[in-house]
Order: sequence, then C-alpha cells, then structure tokens
Amino acid sequence: MGKVVLDISSSLDGFVAGPRPSLEEPLGEGGEQLHEWTVRLASWRERHGESGGVLDADDEVVAEGVASAGAVLMGRRMFSGGDGPWEEDPNADGWWGEEPPFRVPVFVLTHHPRDPLVKLGTTFTFVDEGVESAVEQARAAAGEKNVAVGGGASVAQQVLSAGLLDELEIHLVPVLLGGGTRLLDNLAPQVQLERVRVVDSPGVTHLRYRVVA
Amino acid sequence: MGKVVLDISSSLDGFVAGPRPSLEEPLGEGGEQLHEWTVRLASWRERHGESGGVLDADDEVVAEGVASAGAVLMGRRMFSGGDGPWEEDPNADGWWGEEPPFRVPVFVLTHHPRDPLVKLGTTFTFVDEGVESAVEQARAAAGEKNVAVGGGASVAQQVLSAGLLDELEIHLVPVLLGGGTRLLDNLAPQVQLERVRVVDSPGVTHLRYRVVA
Repeated sequence: MGKVVLDISSSLDGFVAGPRPSLEEPLGEGGEQLHEWTVRLASWRERHGESGGVLDADDEVVAEGVASAGAVLMGRRMFSGGDGPWEEDPNADGWWGEEPPFRVPVFVLTHHPRDPLVKLGTTFTFVDEGVESAVEQARAAAGEKNVAVGGGASVAQQVLSAGLLDELEIHLVPVLLGGGTRLLDNLAPQVQLERVRVVDSPGVTHLRYRVVA
Repeated sequence: MGKVVLDISSSLDGFVAGPRPSLEEPLGEGGEQLHEWTVRLASWRERHGESGGVLDADDEVVAEGVASAGAVLMGRRMFSGGDGPWEEDPNADGWWGEEPPFRVPVFVLTHHPRDPLVKLGTTFTFVDEGVESAVEQARAAAGEKNVAVGGGASVAQQVLSAGLLDELEIHLVPVLLGGGTRLLDNLAPQVQLERVRVVDSPGVTHLRYRVVA
C-alpha cells in the first residue's frame, strides 16, 4: 500500500501562495517565485514535453516524487487554474491542456458533480463526496504507489486535518511573500510531525516529515 | 569587523514564541518545545554551569554560536523574563541570576534609561536610543567577533527591518504551535535572503541565510 504524500513549495515566512490570486497570477502576487526552482529541472522539462534541463539534487527530489506517484489529488482551483473559466462554465477543461503532465489518474475534489474528463495520458475524476472519499478513490487507483496531494493549500489542509496524510515535504524557498495562503494554519496541536530527511541545494531546502499523529 | 547575527528557534508554522506568554510560560503556551533541543546539549550545560550533555551536530551549531559572539543584543522582555518583575520595579535584576550565561557584554534595548547592571562575567548595558544605537554599541563591544541578537521577536524584527542584520539562522523545530509570535511578519519584500548552509540533526534543522538586501 502506498502513502499519501504532500510536497509543496513554501516561502520562508510560511506562504504556499501569494496574496490576491488572479487569472494572471493564479499563485498570487509573487507566488511564481515559489516555483522558479522547478522550471529549470530536467524532470520538470521532461514532464512538460521539453528536453534538457538541470540534473541536480533538486531534480532528484522532483524525479523521485514523480516516479513514486500512482495518483494525484487536487482541488478545483488547481484543476481550473484560478477562479476564471470554471466559474463561467462548470464543464470547462481546466488549464492543463490536451496532454496534462500528470500521466496518472487525477482526482479533483469539488462541490460540483461532473463526468470524468479524459485527456491524453491523464483522466480527471471529480469527487464531490468529500476529502475522505477522494483519498480513498485515489489510494485505490494508485495501488502500491503513492497518492500525491497536488494542492492547493485548501485541499492540503483538509487532508492534514482529517489525519489522512502520511508524509509532508516542504520545499523551503528563501523568499518572503509577506502575505497570502499559509499551509500550516489552524492545524496545531493535533498534527504531530517527525523529520524524515533533509535534502539541501543552493536554492531550496527540501524538508520531509512523517505525520505521526 | 564581526557580523550581526540572529539565531532563533522556530516552529514549523513560523512561531518563535507561543500564544499568551506569562510569568510561568515566558515563551508562551507550548513555547518551551522550541528550546527543548538545546537543554540536553553539552555546550548548553557547560554554559549553565553543568557538566555532561550530548556532543552532536546540534551541539556544534550552538557551541559555534557561543564562541563567535562578542556581544549580545536583547529586548527588555528577554532581560526581565516576561512582563512581571520589571513592570513592578524598573530596577529589578531580570531573571538571569547572579552568574548569567552570556559572559560577554549584553545590550538591552529598552524605553527606560537605567545604569548598567554588573553581574559575574556579564554586564548589562541599557540602551534607550533605539535599535541602531544599540547595534552600534554592541558592534563596538564585540570587536572582531559577532553581535548575537538574542531576541525576542520584537528586537529581531527591528534589527531585520532596519537592515542591520547580516545573517539569520533558524533552528526549525518540527512542532506546530498554532499561534503566538512570528519572526518573519511584516518584513517582505524589502528583506532578501540567500541560503548559506543547512545543518541537519534528527530533531532540528538549522537553516542559515545571509541577508543580501
């Protein structure tokens, strides 16, 4: 049985998205800075249909996460890329294009029931029965592999609060956003963590914790 | 010329003190958890007049900080150990006893002018002319060594905001406090950081950053 894992980029002041998200800046003002470290990596480029890129400690962390994931769980906002298209058309395709980078079954936690959306290599299944059901379905689809909780912060918090997360990996980026969405709000003291490993690169520090309670 | 450095323990959710500090819990509710990792260390025990203790990566980090410090800067609350004695008697001795563990000149940032307080091995000088003057005096006293900003969060924030800090080391403790005082609030985007090193121990991750702007 695989694990339910969350890996997420965070600013040093604890924000996983900047303030005032918009269609232009779905990760909020300054939020792009949290993900700049991934874009140059070989594993990121390969996943997005491009060649080249850097092979370093950061790349190993990302490649390992991709290889171990048998299913992805995400929120409705992450599927649709902000509040835009989905609000206007609940059957919009989201913003992941014709060949989404996941290539494993994706489960989208939503309040709007909807038929599965089949794209090249990736099927999106929409779950409107709550986070426990979404995790259960994703676990079944992942088999021996992990369920990767893709975000955003709301889904991650729901999974953590419900005691459904096995491991949390924070990619700590040395920027300050000064505002936005915090991952680790309103969780203590029920969540207990134990450090599993630290991977260190010049740009980012990857901190992995096991959720022990 | 030495550097102005701050090393401070933080919860994973970014708090350097818990909520509702009191005389019984000067670090706030649950705040003690942030410092449990230090108490078992040889360098901590030696500094507090006790023998024994653990010699590990954590201990090396603490010992290095102690050895490199030529002066300490702290706030009034850290000097007095909360709001208690000082509020009743502005000439109270603070809570560091007859033989404080610092053994270098200590500068206390305060609004209340007061004569220096001389204890065995440590002289406390009270500075009521603002943070720049306090840092300047501490620098002069430290000579070639570093000025260690001791806390609490308010002094640390003042030093950071005034652009007077050279290095920040966060001892990241895998607990969630859920409330309290955050170090890195109201600072972005003027503070820019660059990671210098990471030291990893089973309990705590020591993250050192250079303040580049």
